Amino acid sequence: MIYLDNAATTLIKPKCVIESVLNAFSYMGNSGRGVHNSTLKASETIYSCREKIAKFFNVSDVSRVIFTSNITESLNVVINGLIDSGDHVITTCMEHNSVLRPLYRLEKEKNVEISFIKIDKNGNLLYDEIEKSIKDNTRYIITTFASNVTGNVVDVKKISDIAHKHNLIYIVDAAQAAGSIPIDIESLSIDILCFTGHKGLFGPQGTGGICFKNNIQIRPFKVGGSGVKTFSKEQPNNFPTLLEAGTLNGHGIVGLSSAIDFINEIGIVNIHKKEVELMKRFYYGINNIDGIKIYGEFSKDYIDERVAIVTLNIKNVDSGEVSMVLQDKYDIATRSGAHCAPLLHESFGTKEQGAVRFSFSYFNTIEEVDVAIEAIKSINSSYE
Amino acid sequence: MIYLDNAATTLIKPKCVIESVLNAFSYMGNSGRGVHNSTLKASETIYSCREKIAKFFNVSDVSRVIFTSNITESLNVVINGLIDSGDHVITTCMEHNSVLRPLYRLEKEKNVEISFIKIDKNGNLLYDEIEKSIKDNTRYIITTFASNVTGNVVDVKKISDIAHKHNLIYIVDAAQAAGSIPIDIESLSIDILCFTGHKGLFGPQGTGGICFKNNIQIRPFKVGGSGVKTFSKEQPNNFPTLLEAGTLNGHGIVGLSSAIDFINEIGIVNIHKKEVELMKRFYYGINNIDGIKIYGEFSKDYIDERVAIVTLNIKNVDSGEVSMVLQDKYDIATRSGAHCAPLLHESFGTKEQGAVRFSFSYFNTIEEVDVAIEAIKSINSSYE
Repeated sequence: MIYLDNAATTLIKPKCVIESVLNAFSYMGNSGRGVHNSTLKASETIYSCREKIAKFFNVSDVSRVIFTSNITESLNVVINGLIDSGDHVITTCMEHNSVLRPLYRLEKEKNVEISFIKIDKNGNLLYDEIEKSIKDNTRYIITTFASNVTGNVVDVKKISDIAHKHNLIYIVDAAQAAGSIPIDIESLSIDILCFTGHKGLFGPQGTGGICFKNNIQIRPFKVGGSGVKTFSKEQPNNFPTLLEAGTLNGHGIVGLSSAIDFINEIGIVNIHKKEVELMKRFYYGINNIDGIKIYGEFSKDYIDERVAIVTLNIKNVDSGEVSMVLQDKYDIATRSGAHCAPLLHESFGTKEQGAVRFSFSYFNTIEEVDVAIEAIKSINSSYE
Repeated sequence: MIYLDNAATTLIKPKCVIESVLNAFSYMGNSGRGVHNSTLKASETIYSCREKIAKFFNVSDVSRVIFTSNITESLNVVINGLIDSGDHVITTCMEHNSVLRPLYRLEKEKNVEISFIKIDKNGNLLYDEIEKSIKDNTRYIITTFASNVTGNVVDVKKISDIAHKHNLIYIVDAAQAAGSIPIDIESLSIDILCFTGHKGLFGPQGTGGICFKNNIQIRPFKVGGSGVKTFSKEQPNNFPTLLEAGTLNGHGIVGLSSAIDFINEIGIVNIHKKEVELMKRFYYGINNIDGIKIYGEFSKDYIDERVAIVTLNIKNVDSGEVSMVLQDKYDIATRSGAHCAPLLHESFGTKEQGAVRFSFSYFNTIEEVDVAIEAIKSINSSYE
């Protein structure tokens, strides 16, 4: 199988990830509960991963790295924990439903107002609209770091400058960016970064998290056992305990920890470079063919900044059909449909057709890309 | 190490669990997202686990088995998804903070009323109080299946009878019971069963779930990507999608699936029998010694019904100190403190001292129990 659905989840993980998860089955107690060796070992292991993530994203205080089960949870924790009735939030048409649906719910239930920044025909954000959308009750800007459909990377620094000029909190969904492009929350001035473990970071499923640049008052989403302050009726108010009720996914986190080691060893710049090379080879292999429409910004001075996603359609053929042919005839795994990004597909006019997404990982090869190019050419020729 | 902290998490997992997690790293795509083989394999694997859990707890409709990251999440999903402003809820003094804290939050924020059923000196629920506590606005009864401190098992059938006589919904926290004693939600008439994967069920950390006996209207807790109905502003209203936003922990769930196979192979009755034998050996080895106080109901006609927990104190010695000596001198892992069960420790008058919990698993041995008995005797003698 040629697996080109890495934006959904990376299938191939570094060997060290698998080994460390395997190894964890011999020692992983319940972190933060009790004083015996296996619980201390669990706590140490999880703390060590917290430290690595803090360093990886440049979070100054390790306790402000929070573990969740995936980025959907991260975004629910942040959106529900911060936004109050009557607040106005600015977000974009590029967002995933993991941002949109929590916001729509607050719109309905708590009278929260939402503005959506539009995109141009190549999926680029209309940055000038952001400042114009700010109102007296605007409190937050929430954007993706990189679109899960187009692979376009947002100019996060530009947005954080606008946010902080107006005293707004800037929340970033790094689902597609974390592990694929370097992220320094200090230099980019991202207030809150949500990430998932199982995509570009090469960790196991069931892992994810939140990084907070500064101390911030936030309501907990889940409450429950904390291992400390048992007699308090409320969740203890200190990070990370406030946002980590219940037993963490120790077996998953230890895998994520090794995955970060792997990325650091290769160097994230090198990982990004390789992934972009694969994407460029694919893009330049098909971009001038009649009948193939590619979505996203691929201009020469921008293409190296992207994440390694190429999403396309063949004529008017349903994207699900193309994806199925790729699977059945060429053993190539892609992702069709709307990719949980409704506003983006509405902007592109692909609500019905969807689109076929090819997403590349460090573990893909040039040979695989070449097979995919030929497959697309051949499928394109087969339709009138 | 002699690991007797299985009520926190089972450290030793069946080999098949480890093997299947390892194996999953070769095929686990993102379940329910797309049509290619690795995503279909992921979906099939997860569906298969759903089926096994449905059969294990006798849930009539497989789609009413929901996966979560742990039982704290399960309880938050259920408590926040069902209970409305002004509702009255009956719960007990045996509960874990994963039940209490979500309820306290609703009490504070949504004017929910809570009644706590008291316990006797052996930690038995005062069942007669339940019916007396029912009021016009009572909607739910929530109890643990088995106390994580005493190991006492609640008469769930008695409570479900009361609940249904009064048209109440009965929610059960099976953290300590699932995998340790047979649970049939039909014959016990449990409306909603919350479970965790990493304790008696022998699954990896990061797994857990909810079983619904019948269809029920519930608000989703997390909302976000669902892989289907992308253009709906709300989370799709069908089970399990309604309560499973975001990428599931495929690597963990596959381990849980094999764990269920293991339990079925041995037979849960046999697992319970062995665990109870270990507990009884320990209990009878120390129960008549001056200076040792054991908490819970251990009468002869009840002892075989319990889960395999023995919690004790030595004279007035701080429980943390005893647990530390057990660790340092005897390499025995136990759990001291208040076990996230504040009302129970208040009832026992052990708020300051806490207590030392020994919890046994199928993988413990008679020899380990005997070492623990001698250790307790010796520690007891060492204090005046």
